[in-house]
Amino acid sequence: SKLGKMLKKFGSEFLRTRFSSILSKRGRSSGTDKLHSALSAIVGEKNAAWSLAAREQHNHDESFHAGGTPENCVWPNSVEEVSEVAKFCSKNHISMIPFGTGTGMEGGVVPQNKTICVNLTNMDRISDLNLEDFDVKVQPGVTRKSLNRELRDTGLWFPVDPGADASICGMAATGASGTNAIRYGTMKQNVLNLEVVLADGTILNTAGPKRRCRKSSAGYNLTDLFVGSEGTLGFITSTTIRLHGIPESTLAAVCSFPTVADAVNTTIQVLQCSIPIARIELLDSFTIDAVNKYSSLENKVAPTLFLEFHGSQKGTEEQVDQVSEIATLNGGSEFSWASTTEERSQLWQARHDCLYALLAQRPGSKCYSTDVCVPVSVLSEAIQYSKDVLDDSGLTAGTVGHVGDGNFHCLIILDPGNEKELLGVKMAADMIAKRAIDLGGTCTGEHGIGIGKKELLKSELGAEGISVMRSIKNTLDPLNLMNPYKVIE
Amino acid sequence: SKLGKMLKKFGSEFLRTRFSSILSKRGRSSGTDKLHSALSAIVGEKNAAWSLAAREQHNHDESFHAGGTPENCVWPNSVEEVSEVAKFCSKNHISMIPFGTGTGMEGGVVPQNKTICVNLTNMDRISDLNLEDFDVKVQPGVTRKSLNRELRDTGLWFPVDPGADASICGMAATGASGTNAIRYGTMKQNVLNLEVVLADGTILNTAGPKRRCRKSSAGYNLTDLFVGSEGTLGFITSTTIRLHGIPESTLAAVCSFPTVADAVNTTIQVLQCSIPIARIELLDSFTIDAVNKYSSLENKVAPTLFLEFHGSQKGTEEQVDQVSEIATLNGGSEFSWASTTEERSQLWQARHDCLYALLAQRPGSKCYSTDVCVPVSVLSEAIQYSKDVLDDSGLTAGTVGHVGDGNFHCLIILDPGNEKELLGVKMAADMIAKRAIDLGGTCTGEHGIGIGKKELLKSELGAEGISVMRSIKNTLDPLNLMNPYKVIE
Repeated sequence: SKLGKMLKKFGSEFLRTRFSSILSKRGRSSGTDKLHSALSAIVGEKNAAWSLAAREQHNHDESFHAGGTPENCVWPNSVEEVSEVAKFCSKNHISMIPFGTGTGMEGGVVPQNKTICVNLTNMDRISDLNLEDFDVKVQPGVTRKSLNRELRDTGLWFPVDPGADASICGMAATGASGTNAIRYGTMKQNVLNLEVVLADGTILNTAGPKRRCRKSSAGYNLTDLFVGSEGTLGFITSTTIRLHGIPESTLAAVCSFPTVADAVNTTIQVLQCSIPIARIELLDSFTIDAVNKYSSLENKVAPTLFLEFHGSQKGTEEQVDQVSEIATLNGGSEFSWASTTEERSQLWQARHDCLYALLAQRPGSKCYSTDVCVPVSVLSEAIQYSKDVLDDSGLTAGTVGHVGDGNFHCLIILDPGNEKELLGVKMAADMIAKRAIDLGGTCTGEHGIGIGKKELLKSELGAEGISVMRSIKNTLDPLNLMNPYKVIE
Repeated sequence: SKLGKMLKKFGSEFLRTRFSSILSKRGRSSGTDKLHSALSAIVGEKNAAWSLAAREQHNHDESFHAGGTPENCVWPNSVEEVSEVAKFCSKNHISMIPFGTGTGMEGGVVPQNKTICVNLTNMDRISDLNLEDFDVKVQPGVTRKSLNRELRDTGLWFPVDPGADASICGMAATGASGTNAIRYGTMKQNVLNLEVVLADGTILNTAGPKRRCRKSSAGYNLTDLFVGSEGTLGFITSTTIRLHGIPESTLAAVCSFPTVADAVNTTIQVLQCSIPIARIELLDSFTIDAVNKYSSLENKVAPTLFLEFHGSQKGTEEQVDQVSEIATLNGGSEFSWASTTEERSQLWQARHDCLYALLAQRPGSKCYSTDVCVPVSVLSEAIQYSKDVLDDSGLTAGTVGHVGDGNFHCLIILDPGNEKELLGVKMAADMIAKRAIDLGGTCTGEHGIGIGKKELLKSELGAEGISVMRSIKNTLDPLNLMNPYKVIE
């Protein structure tokens, strides 16, 4: 097999060098008295911790990536305190990692060297809600669900939905997206302004102190430089975002297809007809089977699209007619409807439960999620290639995808104690990502580079791109203190 | 009057320092033999010019900003030639200005020092058209109209429409938008990848050599750093853009209102109802009157919205019903329809002729266009303030706006030979921009900073923002050779 050959070729060296951060837990040095006192003086005694328990809560995210444990954790209460912490660390050459909800997928918050962790979630203010302009400012402690709860009676919502109840500032840092991106865009399209603390403590408003208008051509786009920078350029201490009107009508349906290609072709044709679909999610038959077992459902075991339509009553009905016509032409089943809010929640719960359903297939297992995104015309090819690689590697995986954007995840189920399996997973994931890059895609549609994809980023961007990114990093963080060893070396 | 006071306060010093670049034509030094020979060796004899006529074609755009005249003009034929020119200039510390169609509005191509001009329009290839993915790659010689002509039979189009038939690469450089942005976004939302030549000749693909997928979280967003950089960070030698499906149905209408506030309130309510309107343009009564006279039309002389609806047959009809209901509630007139393609062209021709109609009011006059953009909730206030400032200054202006985005232009008619009037215009424009910034807006929604708005950029971004922009500029162009003295000092 290809994987067998690669294992033979690179074997243990590959294991040791490329994935050392994943496979070995680095030494956990304890915090020092002096550092703790200095940080306590800034954020207050009760907002600084150096107990192992507190520090170990901040040494991982939802991924497999393991590293060190921070020396100290602090919970600043204001942007000024974040700035003071940064100034102190800058002066003393101490690395800093911003921490939100810890729901990242690529080890973005996992220490790679001696560092402190700055947990920003004490700052949880929602302010400057402008109902006429559809915008609001949120601090890092505000998650998308908590914001949407606050907005409940306003007729507005924030639709970017990566699945996890992530911090909105963290979503900005990661460049997150998810199921609604096809209609409402990713974080990039929804962030209007950021308040950022740079490594040296400078407080920067990326679009100036006040700007929140819908567009601007005023100078370099600093906002989008920080969106997706994964904490390597500074702390995001508040995010001004665009909100959207809750649609008058929401319809959801499920439709199964003979093959993945039929489901993808349906998606392509929906896009070609400019139908403003809100969600179009693919689950392969393996995943459907797992979901059925997990939740005692009776979905047909076949590649399936989960669809959602937002708009006016008439508008959504028209969208449904058009999409069901396209689906039928591609061999799709009748739509199975979720008409009430409860049925709709149940439908999407099934989608969001995929991961747990797959994990339940193999007790004690963990999941590694690939995250490639390709042009939709080559999506079937990329998915088929992924399946071939995973089969070839003897790995078990379900495939789910935000197919309208060309973004899909192979949720690979594995035994985390089995180093050979873990290596196989990483090698398969690399092959899938490299093919995606070759097809005009990206190694990460929404999870970010974090620790594990730095080599892939080089393949994707080329030496010139990496060099420009590095020079920007060096300029804004010359001492390499902000979340070091992430994104680029 | 306020302006009177400001004139008294700042008077001639203001004139001399702030607007020296506008008011004085700098000395036109002639090209040198040696430079010409060196450049000819790179691009070929026939693609280099140092005649005064050729050079004077490249010393202005559509604005008032005047400066020097380039030493030499070159027309490279490939990205490699652009790179060679950059290497040569870098080595010899010669400034470079990228030039496209010369349709900029803020002097972005106007020399501020000894420089050569690199006219990129010989590179005019359209390539990599992907009909299934809705994307295409264009070189700087491709304008939006020429691209849309090429796309005619594909069912696709490129909707970003700043009015002028600008180069798409130039539109990326400026961060242009225009009438369709409310539905299809600005250049920022439509650029997938850029090929850029840096000051030192490095050829960079901002999203890697191949990427053209709809989204990515792979590293820093270099693409959006170059979108809107106005030639100060490098030459944009090709742009990969998103295309859109030509809507099944297009309807256009005109509706007049008792006051500007009524028209703006209609716009706000249309946005609040999430109606996916394609164009919503405001013309004030002064402009309507000018348009009527210019084109022998009989529009009611009142604040008027020009509207366009894109979608399915049913969808556009529903949009029209909703919008006309909202308009009626705000005192709007019956919709006057443009049903055929010809009538629609005529309707929009009237909109695009605004400038000429206003100029015809005062023979021999020229126009200066403001370009602020504000949150829509304060749009009426910003427009009213503008009118007050202009009235107070005794200036004549029509107001037109992409009101759905909160972006409006005061088209100020003036005698370019009258320095006092010109100064009055600039001071009024500054006041309008400063108020917009104070209201959460920007000094430029789509024209860019160029020469004239560098001070305003400081007001808008603050010292920290300017400092970060400058450090990025210094990093990518340490010798300050790329379009110097634009955007930031």
